[in-house]
Amino acid sequence: MISLGLRPVMARSKAASREFALIARHFAPLATHRAALALRDDAALLVPEKGHSLVITKDAIAEGVHFLASDPMDLVARKLLRVNVSDLAAKGAKPLGYFLATAFPDGTTDQAVAMFCKGLKADQKTYGLSLLGGDTIRTFGPAVFSCTMIGTVAGRRFVSRNGAKPGDDLWVTGTLGDSGQGLALLQQRATAPEKAASALMRRYWLPSPPFSFHAHLAGLAHAALDVSDGLLQDAGHLAELGGVQLAVRLEAIPLSSAFVKSAGRSNAAKLTAATSGDDYQILFSAPAAARERVQAAARASRTKVTCIGTVKKGRGVIVLDAHGLDVTPERTGYTHF
Amino acid sequence: MISLGLRPVMARSKAASREFALIARHFAPLATHRAALALRDDAALLVPEKGHSLVITKDAIAEGVHFLASDPMDLVARKLLRVNVSDLAAKGAKPLGYFLATAFPDGTTDQAVAMFCKGLKADQKTYGLSLLGGDTIRTFGPAVFSCTMIGTVAGRRFVSRNGAKPGDDLWVTGTLGDSGQGLALLQQRATAPEKAASALMRRYWLPSPPFSFHAHLAGLAHAALDVSDGLLQDAGHLAELGGVQLAVRLEAIPLSSAFVKSAGRSNAAKLTAATSGDDYQILFSAPAAARERVQAAARASRTKVTCIGTVKKGRGVIVLDAHGLDVTPERTGYTHF
Repeated sequence: MISLGLRPVMARSKAASREFALIARHFAPLATHRAALALRDDAALLVPEKGHSLVITKDAIAEGVHFLASDPMDLVARKLLRVNVSDLAAKGAKPLGYFLATAFPDGTTDQAVAMFCKGLKADQKTYGLSLLGGDTIRTFGPAVFSCTMIGTVAGRRFVSRNGAKPGDDLWVTGTLGDSGQGLALLQQRATAPEKAASALMRRYWLPSPPFSFHAHLAGLAHAALDVSDGLLQDAGHLAELGGVQLAVRLEAIPLSSAFVKSAGRSNAAKLTAATSGDDYQILFSAPAAARERVQAAARASRTKVTCIGTVKKGRGVIVLDAHGLDVTPERTGYTHF
Repeated sequence: MISLGLRPVMARSKAASREFALIARHFAPLATHRAALALRDDAALLVPEKGHSLVITKDAIAEGVHFLASDPMDLVARKLLRVNVSDLAAKGAKPLGYFLATAFPDGTTDQAVAMFCKGLKADQKTYGLSLLGGDTIRTFGPAVFSCTMIGTVAGRRFVSRNGAKPGDDLWVTGTLGDSGQGLALLQQRATAPEKAASALMRRYWLPSPPFSFHAHLAGLAHAALDVSDGLLQDAGHLAELGGVQLAVRLEAIPLSSAFVKSAGRSNAAKLTAATSGDDYQILFSAPAAARERVQAAARASRTKVTCIGTVKKGRGVIVLDAHGLDVTPERTGYTHF
């Protein structure tokens, strides 16, 4: 496509030349899957594995909104991949590859692009991903990156948001609130001992979705999603789409020792953890009869899981303290519409 | 995902609320394919038609680079879809749906988003598309939009860039140079009678890829791509990947009457048409024995096709005038690497 900012053929060829060189040098080595056609075509050709369906998700991030220009570019790239891996894992899907659109600010150095691609490469290895295609454009404003990630499930074993049933247990993987506390530290809204602070900020920069748990989810969960906007808010989606009520036990909210060192373990701290964003853990409901299978899956995939409540008849999300008293905060974020 | 610019839970819930409202009001009605799950999940579930492969492409556009803030938003949206439809059509693929990431500038009005979606809706109808998923984020800079479009081909009947063979005819659909001339008019680098000017500028705003030709391409073409960066530059890709030489007859370059009214039909004008961008026509090579079948396919799909040259042994692209003299411009853009 021609660019308004550039004039006739010479300038255009030079710009195109830069783009092709950028792709050849930095991005082509990341296109390891045959579907990518080595980025030599305008499109990828994907022949899905027999008996499998595709699960596709797309998340975008913008400089100044989701990350800062001063953030290490390799971590920005890895976070972009990980927020998409998180969406797929929560659907029980195995990531396969991704399409990437990068709008780098005019004047971005080759070194910054190289650092960005170094991050992509590292996480391609971690999650078994390949770059499949994309577009590299310029913007006169802050950077915007978008990633469309493709995963596969056997048959149609997609774990949706809408199957939670009264009587189900409510589970969450990992610990909650770490990333939100990391951001609070970065914004100097909180304090922590040095080691804990570093762990929490690290969790904000580089989420760690419970990737290896995805393979177990389809056989166990009635409904699932990834916790990205805060546990209570995301629980609201499960409640609304399932036509059920979710009762969360505040004392069961799983906290990391780093979080506790910074925020304590009071009810207020637990509510903070339950309303923080960027957790990238999986929230799922499963029949009470599957309790032992959930624990076995957790052991097999080395994933921490915690039963944090139950699914009931009714609607919305309620939070109960250790005495069974309703301590639901006024805004849990689940009444969007 | 949480946003740096926003503070704790209240602000975040409000922002999330705005995003959910935006999706529900503007985007959800566009998600007509069942794979989209009505945008109620974080991912789409795509069960490919039996015996079909997926062809996937991704193009992004930025305000100030590919379009202006003052451009009608419905046309911006339609152009975004059409540049992707063009990529798929040139591979012989039938478009199915798309994922969309919108980074709207902070303060974008609801009306602007509605206009954008009106454009999407119009072209969803034109091309039989459904919105399948995506992400709506804010940016503090100019708008950036990215589209990942999915199409299907029977079996693996993907028309790649790398199959051109010596002896092939070289064909192009439609006319060339209209869009580039439209941009020249908009930038006041050219003049034209009013009606011609309006047609050329319209072609720049709203490309018209030869969509209905896609169904015929797989059985006919050895190699194909869409002309987006200028005929000679894109021909260079076919030459390079096929390991062949493309000889283009300058006098055969198809020009519209509007283009001729603005730029004339001199060799210089034809070279301008052959090095303009944003044509979104299909360039393909086909065996000489298929000449009548190409013409029949053109009639059946009501697509203009023109034989503009031949494929030879050798490398690169050469341009010959009516006397067979080599008039290849110094920069055709085909020596990228």
